[in-house]
Amino acid sequence: MSAASEADKPSDGLFTQTHERGPVRDEVSSRAWLVAMLDAEAALAGACADAGVVPAAAAETIALVCADAGRFDEKQLGVLAAETGNPVVGLVAAIRAAVPDDVAAYVHCGATSQDIVDTAAMLIARRAIAAVSADLDGCAESAAALTEQHRDTPMVARTLLQQAVPTTFGLKTALWLHGLTKAGLNLRRIQQELPAQLGGAAGTLAGYPAPGSGLHTAHAYAARLGLVNPQLPWHTLRYPIGDLAGALATTAGILGKIALDLVLLGQNEVGEITLSDDGRGGSSTIAHKRNPVAAIAARSAAKRAPGLTATLFASMEQEHERAAGAWHAEWPTLSELLICVGSAAAWLRDALDSFDVDEDRMAANLTALDSAATAGSAVALVDRALAEYRTTTDKSE
Amino acid sequence: MSAASEADKPSDGLFTQTHERGPVRDEVSSRAWLVAMLDAEAALAGACADAGVVPAAAAETIALVCADAGRFDEKQLGVLAAETGNPVVGLVAAIRAAVPDDVAAYVHCGATSQDIVDTAAMLIARRAIAAVSADLDGCAESAAALTEQHRDTPMVARTLLQQAVPTTFGLKTALWLHGLTKAGLNLRRIQQELPAQLGGAAGTLAGYPAPGSGLHTAHAYAARLGLVNPQLPWHTLRYPIGDLAGALATTAGILGKIALDLVLLGQNEVGEITLSDDGRGGSSTIAHKRNPVAAIAARSAAKRAPGLTATLFASMEQEHERAAGAWHAEWPTLSELLICVGSAAAWLRDALDSFDVDEDRMAANLTALDSAATAGSAVALVDRALAEYRTTTDKSE
Amino acid sequence: MSAASEADKPSDGLFTQTHERGPVRDEVSSRAWLVAMLDAEAALAGACADAGVVPAAAAETIALVCADAGRFDEKQLGVLAAETGNPVVGLVAAIRAAVPDDVAAYVHCGATSQDIVDTAAMLIARRAIAAVSADLDGCAESAAALTEQHRDTPMVARTLLQQAVPTTFGLKTALWLHGLTKAGLNLRRIQQELPAQLGGAAGTLAGYPAPGSGLHTAHAYAARLGLVNPQLPWHTLRYPIGDLAGALATTAGILGKIALDLVLLGQNEVGEITLSDDGRGGSSTIAHKRNPVAAIAARSAAKRAPGLTATLFASMEQEHERAAGAWHAEWPTLSELLICVGSAAAWLRDALDSFDVDEDRMAANLTALDSAATAGSAVALVDRALAEYRTTTDKSE
Amino acid sequence: MSAASEADKPSDGLFTQTHERGPVRDEVSSRAWLVAMLDAEAALAGACADAGVVPAAAAETIALVCADAGRFDEKQLGVLAAETGNPVVGLVAAIRAAVPDDVAAYVHCGATSQDIVDTAAMLIARRAIAAVSADLDGCAESAAALTEQHRDTPMVARTLLQQAVPTTFGLKTALWLHGLTKAGLNLRRIQQELPAQLGGAAGTLAGYPAPGSGLHTAHAYAARLGLVNPQLPWHTLRYPIGDLAGALATTAGILGKIALDLVLLGQNEVGEITLSDDGRGGSSTIAHKRNPVAAIAARSAAKRAPGLTATLFASMEQEHERAAGAWHAEWPTLSELLICVGSAAAWLRDALDSFDVDEDRMAANLTALDSAATAGSAVALVDRALAEYRTTTDKSE
Repeated sequence: MSAASEADKPSDGLFTQTHERGPVRDEVSSRAWLVAMLDAEAALAGACADAGVVPAAAAETIALVCADAGRFDEKQLGVLAAETGNPVVGLVAAIRAAVPDDVAAYVHCGATSQDIVDTAAMLIARRAIAAVSADLDGCAESAAALTEQHRDTPMVARTLLQQAVPTTFGLKTALWLHGLTKAGLNLRRIQQELPAQLGGAAGTLAGYPAPGSGLHTAHAYAARLGLVNPQLPWHTLRYPIGDLAGALATTAGILGKIALDLVLLGQNEVGEITLSDDGRGGSSTIAHKRNPVAAIAARSAAKRAPGLTATLFASMEQEHERAAGAWHAEWPTLSELLICVGSAAAWLRDALDSFDVDEDRMAANLTALDSAATAGSAVALVDRALAEYRTTTDKSE
Repeated sequence: MSAASEADKPSDGLFTQTHERGPVRDEVSSRAWLVAMLDAEAALAGACADAGVVPAAAAETIALVCADAGRFDEKQLGVLAAETGNPVVGLVAAIRAAVPDDVAAYVHCGATSQDIVDTAAMLIARRAIAAVSADLDGCAESAAALTEQHRDTPMVARTLLQQAVPTTFGLKTALWLHGLTKAGLNLRRIQQELPAQLGGAAGTLAGYPAPGSGLHTAHAYAARLGLVNPQLPWHTLRYPIGDLAGALATTAGILGKIALDLVLLGQNEVGEITLSDDGRGGSSTIAHKRNPVAAIAARSAAKRAPGLTATLFASMEQEHERAAGAWHAEWPTLSELLICVGSAAAWLRDALDSFDVDEDRMAANLTALDSAATAGSAVALVDRALAEYRTTTDKSE
Repeated sequence: MSAASEADKPSDGLFTQTHERGPVRDEVSSRAWLVAMLDAEAALAGACADAGVVPAAAAETIALVCADAGRFDEKQLGVLAAETGNPVVGLVAAIRAAVPDDVAAYVHCGATSQDIVDTAAMLIARRAIAAVSADLDGCAESAAALTEQHRDTPMVARTLLQQAVPTTFGLKTALWLHGLTKAGLNLRRIQQELPAQLGGAAGTLAGYPAPGSGLHTAHAYAARLGLVNPQLPWHTLRYPIGDLAGALATTAGILGKIALDLVLLGQNEVGEITLSDDGRGGSSTIAHKRNPVAAIAARSAAKRAPGLTATLFASMEQEHERAAGAWHAEWPTLSELLICVGSAAAWLRDALDSFDVDEDRMAANLTALDSAATAGSAVALVDRALAEYRTTTDKSE
Repeated sequence: MSAASEADKPSDGLFTQTHERGPVRDEVSSRAWLVAMLDAEAALAGACADAGVVPAAAAETIALVCADAGRFDEKQLGVLAAETGNPVVGLVAAIRAAVPDDVAAYVHCGATSQDIVDTAAMLIARRAIAAVSADLDGCAESAAALTEQHRDTPMVARTLLQQAVPTTFGLKTALWLHGLTKAGLNLRRIQQELPAQLGGAAGTLAGYPAPGSGLHTAHAYAARLGLVNPQLPWHTLRYPIGDLAGALATTAGILGKIALDLVLLGQNEVGEITLSDDGRGGSSTIAHKRNPVAAIAARSAAKRAPGLTATLFASMEQEHERAAGAWHAEWPTLSELLICVGSAAAWLRDALDSFDVDEDRMAANLTALDSAATAGSAVALVDRALAEYRTTTDKSE
């Protein structure tokens, strides 16, 4: 269940559409975390049933309650979270209160709070990456169309921000396409490696005393959630967070590079791309200014990623079997990082979709360079990028 | 006008009370930014009247409209902000629509969007620092009380996490007090240096053609807002952001150090501080666990500051007369950094207020060390910290 | 050719052995960069010969000169680098001066400075990762031995730095082993994905006008260097740097976590690991203090990685066909990051190799906990980590 | 004694002149740290004599030995540093070996290693800031000259990298001047607040048992070194590091902004500044390319500061009375940050000194804008910046 389908959206404010653009925001909201934690608890009950630790009927009752996020009071759970240090203690109490007394004991069976929060984080990441990927795909589609169209459009290449030698606009957009393809593949790989978390208080699975039942439950839990079943619990070995942070930051870096190129090409003195006169959806007085706004907003979002990433990497230093602070610092930081990458992708998609190319200006700037050089193997490289893109698209469909 | 007095609070979720503890959250909310921007527009109108650029009556009318943030639709302004790149274009249109036609032309007189956003950011910072300072003061009060009480309580000093030589618990808390005092003074100094922003589109004050009226208006604008009138507009010279970031990160570092000491002293094997049995306000089943939660949550908040600070410093590289992305990246990052520092201060205040000192355990650990050494000048140093604290408190009251 | 085999080592100073521990330092030194750039120029000449662009004899002459790094004056090249903006211009001139006149024209054929610097960076990364991996393997070997030995050693698990439930020391070290295995696999994967760089001034391969010769040269160049031949030049699409940064930071995070556990277990009040009385190599008065120093130095090195990583990610925003500053910021930062990770691995290897486990103290601390719980599936999880380690070791040999 | 006067310079390599430009490198070298630690030991002996704790003659003997850094073997001290965890243990042994037996006992009297390392760090910072300030002053001088000369040179202001309204080049350079003045004042303020460190093993001054002798020694120690005598030792309360980091990062941000403007103005399509044909010191074939290299290298150096700053802030979380890793992470990071800021200042001074302004191009670009607007109060703002600069210069001389 994706949180995005919920009616209750986080409230919109002055900066929401600017800094939290696109669908990711809904996937990392308070509601989305609640849904993800409930998904984890439901899968846990089901997995316990699979392993014979919990009666199947009890698991179904629990799953039914967990399917209705709307019955839980986020604000009240938030107050309890601050008192207990994490949002699971209160949530488990609320689920137990919502099921018959004889079922209550089966709720959260053998798990610790961190199992649920970490698993929820992985579900959040999976859903958010799906949302980001849709916008990345949209960006790639635009970049591919530009590349097809401008395969032979000559322009000047600029090194160190100085005019250098001839290239083609198609090769420039092919590089964008290549980057978007790489980012998409990378995020999808990371997405498929996201592990479930189940270990109990100390990562020993001691909550499942029957021989083999712990490993069985953990396996079924991951399978039900569509997450990887890790070799060991990773309570304080945070490589999944590190891998995720690295892939997200690299994606942000690629998006930021493309947005920067757009901003630079759109300078009046360069003038090689221009603002669309009629926008995408008709012509309002404001819409004609969307294009530079979009590239700028994409840059803005991308610029926020490296600092957030540094926080996640620094937080990998976690004590013993549960960290006293570093773990907690991950939650808002990961959410924020996902929003930034999603916002950059959504804005860039907008930007790539709404500018005009001024081939005459490109030609004029190139003439001014007065170079006898050619664009070399630009066309062959363009073809490679397009072929890579098509292969990827076919595979992923 | 402080946004905290508004009825409309941002919605509470699962993590609000954990990660956005204390009063700062309300001071950096969407509503708070709206209020601050309206304060800037009202002051601008008034300043223009002071400089004879706008009729006094028109300025009063504008101020009246700007005093009622509730009449503006934040969500709608947010949509316009995304279309135009910042929230001021839509806000100015809304203010103009709310005043009589003959007053509309005087709204936003001579200013550019960045003037209003940057000034609002400084107002936000001032108000948020006031909120942080209240919690820092509370922390200092607790630290001072502990220092008075444990001036002579012997304990073992630990270097590199190994027992080293004798010290006193009073000297340890005196160091905390010293840090809190330093942080408070530093933030108050920064708070008093926050500059207004008024320069118009290019920082030339060209919107005030009458000789001297630009400088006059800028002076009156800052005076009305209680902000510093800077020598020059700082549209793309972001030292006020850098100074603020540095002071906030240093504060977070001090808070994090104290929280870490608490966590380490509270380890079962060390046992020199223990959880209070009856909490601060009676004894609920949950309350007895508040203490470690508070120190942990303080650490968590403090750990998020350095990465956010890096983003602000990296964003100082801004193009020409308005940055194409780096400026926009400041807004959410500054808000988030203020929240983190505020949350760390609020949680630490809680933590410092609710633990028991086990002097016997301190003595026992010291005996185990079997050192002939004394605590040296600990008492004299303790007195210094207390004297500094008292002086500061007197001064600031 | 690895730079580590060179006689000329960078000069040792006060902090070299503390902050630049292990073999990585030599792999990122000025000399190592020189060697890597010469390797790139030699491979380029050879690749051009492969593609029929350069006579084979000329390529051999160039390769011979490039094989002797000692003939080049690093200091003088450094002065030229500062005048021209990168170290390649001067180097190419020096190579040309060292070959017969009729060969000189074939030096650096069709390449741009960035081709050589970027390729050298990838060679540096490959060699440095090999050096890091050796120390990671050593760490894993120690962790595996500890895990075998303490498979059933009961101890208390600590969550939020509070005693929680029983676990085994074997499970704790199994988690370390798992992390070290993951880090090693991840670095080796990244190492095998490192791409060569060859595109010429604008990434068009325009320096190879004969049809097909550009792609042919690029292919042969990568093959000769044992690097991946990328679909497109990545002059300003820095995903290889981002991928590398992410993997290195995650490795640092894992090493830091293990070092932290060691420091915490070695606290006098915990006392579950103790300093070895006779060191590893006999008993000097200083050697008995090596153990805590090693874990502390490992933590210190690991703590430096996230900030450096943030710089690399932030530097991905690169202009057009060559960045005006962000590219240059990568060179020292990548070198520094490799040193930090290498230093952390070298120190941790030292630390893991030189402590005693106090099983009695572990038992005593566990008794104090007075828990009826067991260590659950700890043994099964331990076996998984050992099996994973053995599989990996077999594979990689 | 400044290390820069020493004959033994750190070895130059391929990147030294590019990434470690200017005089700061020598002030943070291994030799400079050795000199600073020896200065601290000499001052300590002298201060102990002042307080009657050490015979004056012994103090003089110690000071004499400490004045000759050349007699100490840095490489050997570095090996010992790695064994003991810091460079002071070995250094104290070496000093003791160099003085008569009856003086040896007075070496390092009452101090702990951290006292010497932290004090040395503050001396290093003071000396490095002096070196940075000289280059900042040079930058300001150039900016002031440009401002005088181009007070009335019309040009177009650019917001969001789009042409906006008229301004003057003088106002643009006045903003640079204002930033440089601010940075200089800020660094000098921080420089004057740098505190000495003396507390002994636990910060209690227990090494000075005679009543009052500890405080007396600490006072004399700071006075002799020209550092501030802090109220309390700051062994694990790292506000001096935080304050320093903030000021350095803000300086880097200002330098980076100016360098970015230069790079953007120098784009061929903008062409408002151009490369000098005859350089500053005659006309070599390479010299005519120095200008863009300088601005680019300045940007590169500035871009490295935020990440390093984040490491310093994150390292403020230090345990008890001496940190197990975070303290050690400060040393190389602070050195590196000082080098980056110094390198940015040195390169920017070069850049500001060697470009030509193309007033015709500025006029032409402005004409293309076709705006009826004026440059407003630009001249008045220019005068303010010049007046502020002159006041500061007078004051500081």
